[in-house]
Amino acid sequence: VVTLAEKLIFVVIDGLGDRRCRSLFGKTPLEAATKPFLDFFAKNGKVGLVDVVDPSIPPTSESGIFSLLGYDVLKIKIARGPLEALGIGIQPSDELIFRSDFATIRDGIIVDRRAGRIKEGVKELEKEINEKIFLDDVNFIFKSTIAHRGIVIFYSDKFELSEYVSDTDPGATGVPPKLCKPLIIGENEVRTAKAVNEFIRKSHLILNFHKVNLARKAKGLLEANYLLLRGAGIGLPKVRKLPEIYKKFWNCISGSPLEKGISRLVGMNVVDVPEATGDIDTDLKGKAKALFDFFEDYDCFFIHIKGADEAGHDGNCELKKEIIEKIDGEFFSEIFSNVNLRKTIICVTADHATPCELMKHSNDPVPILICGGKIKKDEIDNFSERSCMKGSLGRLKGSSILELLMRELGK
Amino acid sequence: VVTLAEKLIFVVIDGLGDRRCRSLFGKTPLEAATKPFLDFFAKNGKVGLVDVVDPSIPPTSESGIFSLLGYDVLKIKIARGPLEALGIGIQPSDELIFRSDFATIRDGIIVDRRAGRIKEGVKELEKEINEKIFLDDVNFIFKSTIAHRGIVIFYSDKFELSEYVSDTDPGATGVPPKLCKPLIIGENEVRTAKAVNEFIRKSHLILNFHKVNLARKAKGLLEANYLLLRGAGIGLPKVRKLPEIYKKFWNCISGSPLEKGISRLVGMNVVDVPEATGDIDTDLKGKAKALFDFFEDYDCFFIHIKGADEAGHDGNCELKKEIIEKIDGEFFSEIFSNVNLRKTIICVTADHATPCELMKHSNDPVPILICGGKIKKDEIDNFSERSCMKGSLGRLKGSSILELLMRELGK
Repeated sequence: VVTLAEKLIFVVIDGLGDRRCRSLFGKTPLEAATKPFLDFFAKNGKVGLVDVVDPSIPPTSESGIFSLLGYDVLKIKIARGPLEALGIGIQPSDELIFRSDFATIRDGIIVDRRAGRIKEGVKELEKEINEKIFLDDVNFIFKSTIAHRGIVIFYSDKFELSEYVSDTDPGATGVPPKLCKPLIIGENEVRTAKAVNEFIRKSHLILNFHKVNLARKAKGLLEANYLLLRGAGIGLPKVRKLPEIYKKFWNCISGSPLEKGISRLVGMNVVDVPEATGDIDTDLKGKAKALFDFFEDYDCFFIHIKGADEAGHDGNCELKKEIIEKIDGEFFSEIFSNVNLRKTIICVTADHATPCELMKHSNDPVPILICGGKIKKDEIDNFSERSCMKGSLGRLKGSSILELLMRELGK
Repeated sequence: VVTLAEKLIFVVIDGLGDRRCRSLFGKTPLEAATKPFLDFFAKNGKVGLVDVVDPSIPPTSESGIFSLLGYDVLKIKIARGPLEALGIGIQPSDELIFRSDFATIRDGIIVDRRAGRIKEGVKELEKEINEKIFLDDVNFIFKSTIAHRGIVIFYSDKFELSEYVSDTDPGATGVPPKLCKPLIIGENEVRTAKAVNEFIRKSHLILNFHKVNLARKAKGLLEANYLLLRGAGIGLPKVRKLPEIYKKFWNCISGSPLEKGISRLVGMNVVDVPEATGDIDTDLKGKAKALFDFFEDYDCFFIHIKGADEAGHDGNCELKKEIIEKIDGEFFSEIFSNVNLRKTIICVTADHATPCELMKHSNDPVPILICGGKIKKDEIDNFSERSCMKGSLGRLKGSSILELLMRELGK
């Protein structure tokens, strides 16, 4: 009798993939990192490379995750605002929801799109915006989520808000923020864009002179005096849910609103972990604890770990290496100690590469390892972009991974 | 300067209200219980009685909770299936979802609607049902949630499922289960009911001869050999969300799928607490810990505590008294020790009474206490059905409570 593995632990390390770094003597952060546990899993399983969305397309966080969960991202309407709202527990229905970022703007020019990755004081800024701003035609609520990140929810009894309005985030510094504009010609689109611009203008006034920002300026920190908006959407895309496709039940462990939202949309339960900030200082031991606290209750676990991506965006190779070492030492060590590999499939990969030299997402393929259950080992004994090139998994398409993993669980 | 309270802890004790019990020498379980912390809060605040939905209507769990959260339950389409699905992390879209209960049926007659409150072995039964049943026209997935409770999700690419089909749970023992029937005349309704009945018939066959049930029989336990279905629905009702109404952010701490689902629907985040089983043995300390783990991140906390309701349904006055004592000693003691009452409003009430003498929900009003912040005390120094009759809050309507509490937070 062949006993199949019963559980799957699917770990996505945000922005893990990278390129050779000069400051790491020509190694990638993953190669340079001391990561005995990841190497153990690679050595006892198979490795390969993944084109997460398509070899020619740098994945966004959202398209990367949807693809890794088996969905064809070209067929799903993905708006980041409603997904992040769902991630923090707000069910989108008829509201227009944007993802927002606190940014620093001086003389009309964006100096930093993340306001120095502000953490302290964001709740005070949130409170002031919610209490002091009144818009002519619509209601809104602003919710800061993690650090500079947040969402803005617009709703109205006076007219039907439209999602066909543009981002205000130009995606670059050194330029002015954009105005929100109608993407199609229509009265609702014009009124919606007008309301969004009114919100941005009024919030800028309040933020610019808020004591939190005056204090930041005095300390030489970048002030959070502007809200950049993007990813507007109303409602959620309809997708067939993972439990309906594979008859397995999933639990997501992530601190990040977007990944939590996508996980909820595809039918996973989501566990909130205290101090899983979804950021560089995220509590990795807390994530491992949550995994084992709920291990009996679900078949599959989707674990999303941030940190490496942020270091890549900041172009900091050494930090990225250190974060990978921290993830190995605090998270994968716990998997190593507590998981019966005969009964559990482990898969580790990334949603995209964030090469430090580019400081943004790239279309480079990302490494993947799978081990456990009946999976045979190949000859590769460590986990890196280069070693995975020679792995027996070859080059996979992101959206095919889940089917492959499910087969190991007997689907 | 008047400083308003900043936080709200809103605790709903499921089925708390009761009537005089002979075995408690004419006291109610709440009166008979030793509960120093609840009495402390009552003594230092105001008390009263609540008609949760209406003086003439015994609330269901769902109508009670919606009402306590300020909604007019007569205006919301409430189907329990989709709400419980949402509670366990499945976003209802186009699926037909039922709430299910493992029951015991012998010679075609329902002997127990909860299969002796079965706990052990439900995951094995779930697995067998999901793996061994194939229906002609539709797909399904069955998920056991807590103890005898579960949901069944039907979906189909062949025809449009209809929610206008009847429950199979007659709500009583000593009678046969009902067939699922179309509630309106239409092809989709007929096909839907046919598929549901096919599922029930096939699952009964599998359950009746499953080794988990043979073992239960051998031990003299009630076998879980039938699934009673109720609360069918497709999709979720649209409601204005609490954060949009009051500009406050909410966190729900509950182990119970229905309450988690309702909380998600109204815009709360929901924290999963390990071992918060939503049942008599629920981990109350875990709930208190979750409250304080996330205390800084939210303005308002909705905490739902089960146990008292189950004892009421089972007609067990002594157990109900003991459970109230446990809730006081393990949960409210932590609130007492860790909360700054000057800055925090506390409200404790129930979603309905479950009098032990009736063994079901009643339309009796339920006790309520509020304290903290600027709330003055009245002359009542303990918390019970009778003492609350004389409280200064008088007799409140369930749906008016939240507005009253929000005013204390400066809304």
